[in-house]
Amino acid sequence: MAISNDRTVEIPVDLGNCSYPIIVGHGLIDSIGRLMVKHSLEGKAAVISNRTVVDLFGEKVEESLRRSGFRSTFHTVGDGDEFKNLDCARELYDALLDLKIERGDTVIGLGGGVVGDIAGYVAATLLRGINFVQVPTTLLAQVDSSVGGKVGVNHERGKNLIGTFYQPRFVLADTTTLESLPENQMRSGLAEIIKCGCIGSTALFQLVETGYRELLNLDNGILTGAISSSCRIKAEIVEMDERDMTGERAVLNFGHTVGHAIESLSGYTDYLHGEAVATGMIAAGYMGTEMTGFPQEDFDRLVTLIKAAGFQTDIGNFSAADIIDRTYIDKKVTAGRVEYVLPERIGYAVSGRKVPDELVRNAIGFIRTLR
Amino acid sequence: MAISNDRTVEIPVDLGNCSYPIIVGHGLIDSIGRLMVKHSLEGKAAVISNRTVVDLFGEKVEESLRRSGFRSTFHTVGDGDEFKNLDCARELYDALLDLKIERGDTVIGLGGGVVGDIAGYVAATLLRGINFVQVPTTLLAQVDSSVGGKVGVNHERGKNLIGTFYQPRFVLADTTTLESLPENQMRSGLAEIIKCGCIGSTALFQLVETGYRELLNLDNGILTGAISSSCRIKAEIVEMDERDMTGERAVLNFGHTVGHAIESLSGYTDYLHGEAVATGMIAAGYMGTEMTGFPQEDFDRLVTLIKAAGFQTDIGNFSAADIIDRTYIDKKVTAGRVEYVLPERIGYAVSGRKVPDELVRNAIGFIRTLR
Repeated sequence: MAISNDRTVEIPVDLGNCSYPIIVGHGLIDSIGRLMVKHSLEGKAAVISNRTVVDLFGEKVEESLRRSGFRSTFHTVGDGDEFKNLDCARELYDALLDLKIERGDTVIGLGGGVVGDIAGYVAATLLRGINFVQVPTTLLAQVDSSVGGKVGVNHERGKNLIGTFYQPRFVLADTTTLESLPENQMRSGLAEIIKCGCIGSTALFQLVETGYRELLNLDNGILTGAISSSCRIKAEIVEMDERDMTGERAVLNFGHTVGHAIESLSGYTDYLHGEAVATGMIAAGYMGTEMTGFPQEDFDRLVTLIKAAGFQTDIGNFSAADIIDRTYIDKKVTAGRVEYVLPERIGYAVSGRKVPDELVRNAIGFIRTLR
Repeated sequence: MAISNDRTVEIPVDLGNCSYPIIVGHGLIDSIGRLMVKHSLEGKAAVISNRTVVDLFGEKVEESLRRSGFRSTFHTVGDGDEFKNLDCARELYDALLDLKIERGDTVIGLGGGVVGDIAGYVAATLLRGINFVQVPTTLLAQVDSSVGGKVGVNHERGKNLIGTFYQPRFVLADTTTLESLPENQMRSGLAEIIKCGCIGSTALFQLVETGYRELLNLDNGILTGAISSSCRIKAEIVEMDERDMTGERAVLNFGHTVGHAIESLSGYTDYLHGEAVATGMIAAGYMGTEMTGFPQEDFDRLVTLIKAAGFQTDIGNFSAADIIDRTYIDKKVTAGRVEYVLPERIGYAVSGRKVPDELVRNAIGFIRTLR
């Protein structure tokens, strides 16, 4: 796979009528107005964001939209997953309807995963769907939320329980927006990139093995290459299974079963999503060595990379029993079965594997030996 | 077009991955469990309905589901459009999540349009979409909501402003469920059937011209023929334009521009939807005679049928100016333009026609001469 360098890369996501491109590059946010015109959008642009992100990029976005003839308004939601709920969605419905928004107008989601998920959900469900443009401003959102069309909000009973699938008209991933991101947030995105390498591309895995320091230090060439490769891998998978029905898409949950259990046990506070996923990938890798012939050498590379990149894999006081219990209340339980994604080698993984509790316990025991 | 007689008719709605059949016939509700098994459904069945409908058919449905191995629960919403809102949707989310509903389970919408719209919306947005089966129990819902996938709820600012497109796994339209329906409700459905004839089938129009008395008296052969023909016409249109994007679907709004204005002016209380649409069809027919060459003879047939079938076309004290103003705040306004659907002949109509206010006034004047 060609890993591109210091320039703009466009990754097509081919979903028939709902196809769209992901545009990755340096300094693109100044061109959002022009890109919207290029994609035949016109009229009003309602930017959904949060206060921090608006302070950083609001002026640039407003200016670019104005230059291209859009009337823009800005609408902020609270910063944090606890604001991704139906109450906030309702406030946005009210605000957008007050503006007399029409189906031909556009909602822009400017921010991280929370903003993207709620903005996309509002765009999907207002007037039976208005145009949506996604401008992810965190590394995690750029690699994770750019492809797949999963939008939604949380419910008291769990994360993302209310939602739908809705594709944007395009995604703009500007690597300059990452400059203000704290390192642990960068690392959280890096975990998803490592995941994409593990399940879909040895070339991407190697790029990260050799370049994770540069990536965390915001080297634009490495970033653009890693983001675009990750999106391309995810796009190939999502193209086979847009609505998560036929099972191909399940492979994207690599590292997420134990990862979600750890996040959930910690009340989603002590661990960033990517950190939990990194730990979960080690757990799944360990299981793979027993169950799918995942080579010890590949497992060692995975563990080495995750530790070298500085992920915290400390699972504290959570017992293996607690973690296993928690995996059973994950959304991906099918007919009472927990299904794991296990790697066969770096670059290829299989989904739908039922793992004996004993082996999960051993994997968690292994994680405790890491430091 | 072949109009079928006293038997079950299956109309395929061809929407690629989201294709489904509409099954029309007499006494089918007793077979719902068997039909669900036939469509590869299993697990839990959450029936969303209202108290009146549950009293009438709940036992039959529960019994049929039980016989086929489904665990069913019943959830009622208030009877009336004012209950089709986000608060009621939320109560349903809570109730269904309390049941630990999974994506492989099924929501059944058992009732009229309000129940179908809210049940479909909940099914579409819970866990990013769970299986949905629609059992419309009013004539209007059987011909209007069975095809098209429009689901949603009202917002304080207007009807159906929150919603999405979501296709059921199948629709079961049992003509026996119409036996308890008041005559004005039957007539409301009849208006949509006349609409389908006007825009898509002279044979259907003729069937209604000769058989409207039998239809209102629940003759099963006529009902099955008229419902299945209407669904077939609507399916052909929706297949061209699933998400109401390319304009083909607009033709389904025949009679709805002036119709919605009248409903809206009356606060959705004095007129049933179908009565308002019948009046709107006369208005559009009148405009057609001036603008599209709609033959006077065809217009006379339309007016004669609507009056003979007993529709109330009294628009009371609403002035032409009030009605025209109200047409401008309809959801179908595009870039400030009101677009009408006008018939060219019985069996064919065109959409996207801008009509001079003067002609709308004359059409309303004509309606006032009717009695």
